[in-house]
Parts: sequence; C-alpha cells; structure tokens
Amino acid sequence: MGPLVSPERVRPRGPTPIDVLSDLLADDMAAVDAIIHERMSSPIGLIPNLATHLIDAGGKRIRPLITLASARLLGRIGDAPRKLAAAVEFIHTATLLHDDVVDDSGLRRGKQAANRVWGNPASVLVGDFLFARSFNLMVETGDMQVLDILARAASIIAEGEVMQLVAANDADATLSRYLAIIEAKTAALFAAAGKAGAVSAGKPGAEADALHAYGLNLGLAFQLVDDALDYDGRQSAMGKNIGDDFREGKITMPVVIARDAGGADERNFWRRVMTGEQQPEDFDRARALLAKHDAIARTLRAARDYAATARAQLDGLPPNVYRDALAALADFVVDRNA
Amino acid sequence: MGPLVSPERVRPRGPTPIDVLSDLLADDMAAVDAIIHERMSSPIGLIPNLATHLIDAGGKRIRPLITLASARLLGRIGDAPRKLAAAVEFIHTATLLHDDVVDDSGLRRGKQAANRVWGNPASVLVGDFLFARSFNLMVETGDMQVLDILARAASIIAEGEVMQLVAANDADATLSRYLAIIEAKTAALFAAAGKAGAVSAGKPGAEADALHAYGLNLGLAFQLVDDALDYDGRQSAMGKNIGDDFREGKITMPVVIARDAGGADERNFWRRVMTGEQQPEDFDRARALLAKHDAIARTLRAARDYAATARAQLDGLPPNVYRDALAALADFVVDRNA
Repeated sequence: MGPLVSPERVRPRGPTPIDVLSDLLADDMAAVDAIIHERMSSPIGLIPNLATHLIDAGGKRIRPLITLASARLLGRIGDAPRKLAAAVEFIHTATLLHDDVVDDSGLRRGKQAANRVWGNPASVLVGDFLFARSFNLMVETGDMQVLDILARAASIIAEGEVMQLVAANDADATLSRYLAIIEAKTAALFAAAGKAGAVSAGKPGAEADALHAYGLNLGLAFQLVDDALDYDGRQSAMGKNIGDDFREGKITMPVVIARDAGGADERNFWRRVMTGEQQPEDFDRARALLAKHDAIARTLRAARDYAATARAQLDGLPPNVYRDALAALADFVVDRNA
Repeated sequence: MGPLVSPERVRPRGPTPIDVLSDLLADDMAAVDAIIHERMSSPIGLIPNLATHLIDAGGKRIRPLITLASARLLGRIGDAPRKLAAAVEFIHTATLLHDDVVDDSGLRRGKQAANRVWGNPASVLVGDFLFARSFNLMVETGDMQVLDILARAASIIAEGEVMQLVAANDADATLSRYLAIIEAKTAALFAAAGKAGAVSAGKPGAEADALHAYGLNLGLAFQLVDDALDYDGRQSAMGKNIGDDFREGKITMPVVIARDAGGADERNFWRRVMTGEQQPEDFDRARALLAKHDAIARTLRAARDYAATARAQLDGLPPNVYRDALAALADFVVDRNA
C-alpha cells in the first residue's frame, strides 16, 4: 500500500529547524548534556547504563531546546534554564521508560527498548530515579515558580497516562477525550518547557503565558503527527515499530475519524481490533479504512492548525533568531517524516 | 517449627506508641487524611480506586506521624507540616505500588496487591501520579528547604531500590552493602520525614539534624525487624506473605549472617536458593540454618541497637509528650510482631 498522505509532507533537504536551534544553542546544549550525564551517574552501574541506552540513542532533545530557546528569546540566560532543560529531558525520559513497560513496545529510538534489555523492574526504578533527579535539579534553581510549573506538569502527565490506559479499552472514546489525553500526556510537558524557560529568564507574565500556549499547541501538533506516522511512517525513520498504536489498541485521532465516518460494519471492525483479538490482515484493512475516510490527511490538517496557533503565540515576543527558530519548529513538527 | 526468637518480643497489651501518637495528633492526622484523599482524587476513576485500595488498607501511617510529631515537638504547627506529612505518605505509597510491580508480591497489607487487581501498568502510572502529587504538596508549602530534603530522599530511595534489584542476583552481597540498601530504600524517608517536620516548624538547625538522625536509625531498625519477620512472622499479623523475601531471592541481614557463619555446604545452599531454582523444602532448611546461627536474634539485636541510637538523638530536644511518644516508638518498632 502506498503513502496515505499528500506529497507536500516531504520536506526539503537542508538543516531542519531542530538543527538550527541546536546550532544557535550549541553551548547551552553542551552544558545541558553535561548536566544530564552528570546527574544520571550513580555508583549503581545499572542506572547510567540503562539511562544512557535511551538518552544517547539520538532523541531530538526538542523539549530542552524549547526551554533554552524560550529563555534566550527573552534575553537573559544563566544556569537556571540549563538545569531546567535537563530536568525537562529527565521527566520526558522517565515517562518513556515507564511507557515502554506499560505498552510493552519492542523498539524505542531504533534500539531495543530498555525494558527488553534489562527487564521491567529496572525500567520502572530507573525511571523513578530520573524523575526524582529532575526535582533535585529544579530545587537547585531556587525558583519556586518553575517548581510549581513542572510539578504540575508531572501530575498532569501521569494523569494523562492513566487516562490513556483506561481509554485503551474503550473503542467508543470520543475525539474530545482523545484530545484531552494527548494534551495531558504530551502537550503539557511542551507547555511547561516553554513557560519554565520564560520564567527562568525573569519573564513570568505575558511572555511566560505566550510560551506556555506555544508549547501546548506545538505538543498537540507533534502528537497528532506521531499518531498519523504510526499508520504511515517508515520504521527506519521513526525508530519505532510502525503499527504499534494499532497493535496496542490505542485509540488515536485517525482511528476516531475513520470510526465515526464509517457505517456499523466498520465500527464493529474498529471495536474488535481495538479491544479484542487482531488477525494478521487487520492492519491492512485498518489502513484501507483510514484512506477511504481521508483520516490521515485530516489528522495532519488538525496538526497544521495547532502548529499555526503555536506560531501565532510568538507574535508579541521580541523578534530575534530564537523566535524565528521556534516559529519554524512549529511548521517542521508537522512536515517531518519521523 | 517454633518461633525463632526470644519471648520478650511479645509486647504487652494496651495502646501502642503508634496508638498514642495517633491520639496526640488526632486533629492533625484527620487533616492529613483529608489532604491525602483530596489530592488522590481525579476524574479518572482508576486513580482514586487504586490509590484508595492501598492507602485505606490500614497502613500504620508511621511516616506522617513522625513528620507531625517532629513539628509539634518543636512547638509550632501550621498547614505546612500537614501537607508535608501527606507528601511523605504519597512518596511511600508510590514506592509500594512500584515495589509490588518489581517484586510481583501477591499480598500487601493483607489484601491483594494493587497490581494483581488492576495490572502492572496501572500500578506504575498511579504510582507516578502520587509521586508527582507529593511534589505539588511540597511546592504549596513554599519552603525550598523541605523540597530539597524530600527531593533528595526521593532520589536516594530510587537509587536504593535499584541497588536492591541488582543485589537480588548477588548471593555474595556483604553486610555493608545490605545496610547501604536499607538505609537508602527505607531509612532515608524516615529521616526526611523527621527533618522536614522540624524545618517546617521553623527549626532547621540542630533540631532538624537530630530528627534526621532519629528517623534514619528508626528506619534501619524498622527494616531489620521487617526482614526478621519475613522468616518468623505470621501472615495474618503482617498483612503480607511470610517468606516473600526468601522466594524473591532478596538478601537480607538474617541471610547474610547465616551465610557468613556457615561452611561451604551452607554457602552453596544460600547461593542456590538466592539466585536459582528453589525447592518446596528449601524454606524450612533456610529457617533451620537461621536458627542454627542465631541469625534472627542477632538481626533483632542489631535492630535494638539502632532503636537505642534513634532514642538517644532525642535527648537534646524539648521534653514533652511528643518526644516521649517518639522515644517509645523507637522501642516499639523492635518489639512489634507485625
């Protein structure tokens, strides 16, 4: 089966906005990487071994880049944004380690998932360790407001993960329920990453609110594209298995769209494959139904709308290279192939 | 096989020091319980259902009692110690939920463990939620020093849990390694509970250090007794399965003592049962070897020494009913049957 989406998704060659941000923030990111590696060290070798397996597997570091760019955009940068950027990446990493246990997914960032190598107990406990370490870093900034922002985000993320676990057995989950889940489990950390960057740069007011809204909408766009790619990406580019969401019975926006657009037969199909036994041919049937109802393209259109909303949040902020790069990032998360 | 320990462990009837503390702190504990139930609520019903299953199962609330008693002992008490007491209980509860996944233990506080009822993914994610909520509570106190104390404790606990996971496959683990594990995974939270109570009562100096040392030594005593009871307790009183540690190959102080006191034959026995396949008759053989080397009584003697050290930390603090109750608690954790 060919690609389900329109050709304009193929992005032009050249540096991506993530490359641009990584260049602009090269010194900051080197410092963040140093903090990350220093703080995941432990005399218990299993901790750095397992954490390094995931952290050095080539994640895009998009969340710490948002924290740093938000701070630089607003002018001032000291130690605090770097520590917060590392803290944000730790929260994200801890979530991935626990997700792998919850989903029992085999691949992560193109490598065997950590729990397949070291077992579920190790992934649970090292995730806990990184989560705790993220709070140590926040405490070191001495800034109660960023602690509040990130601690709230951590609660929301965990609540979103539970919501998703519950919805995974609910073939009737509505679009609004699905959006509430991805707002909590994905977008909340992007939002907190932007807001914490602004606050740590001494701008807790309108600027922080704008970067919170930027991150929230960017995160929604990001997750919608992820969900589309699960039915349409290539494993080599994504670093995870295509069809994972489907096999795990995870209701995502493409499924909601196709299910609601189809007749009783199709709804029964989705109910069976999302909550019961799957047959080998089911994934192809699912992709055919998604194509029939234009579900991938419609999902990507929704993602584009969120990305445009994210961009618009930046309008009132100081015009500079960081603002330009964050604006370009919003378009890029929709047009990426992986 | 009869009891392995001396008869003075049977405590007299009447209110225990935990009962006394619970009475003295009845108003505070009612407030803490209200905070706990309010903060574990969520529109996602699975979260309060699972959390309530464990939290309302009759835990002794010993850690929040230490926080509250430490604060009251030093005179002042406002909202902060109550929020911190709830935060400490949340950290403890999150740890138990993750422990159940790691250990795959069937019983907890006399009930089916939460992961047996709702599955491992739910226990992992609700644990994460409670852990995050504990930080929300700490942030609300606005006290960076208590955040530092509890965030450090959280890191140390997670590191101790990983240490224990690694040591579970190491039949040669030394006594000092074992003590490092229980100091991290158990005693660190008792220590933080005492210190945070003192700091939140406005006494961050010598008083906080004393209550930190009290908690640390009390926690060590508490864990040693737990480890002894695993070979000698009764299931009904403990609310967990007797022999769990043995079946899970967990090296504890009684095992270390018996292993190091025995000859090559016995060491081979311990190596096999701690790291390989167990036969049905192995548990009785283990108990016989523990009796031969007086390992339970020696473990309880070590616990008594730690309890005495804990008590001694209280000497320089204001003499009042809270100090008396904490002193009595130190003796009680050693003399309890469960």
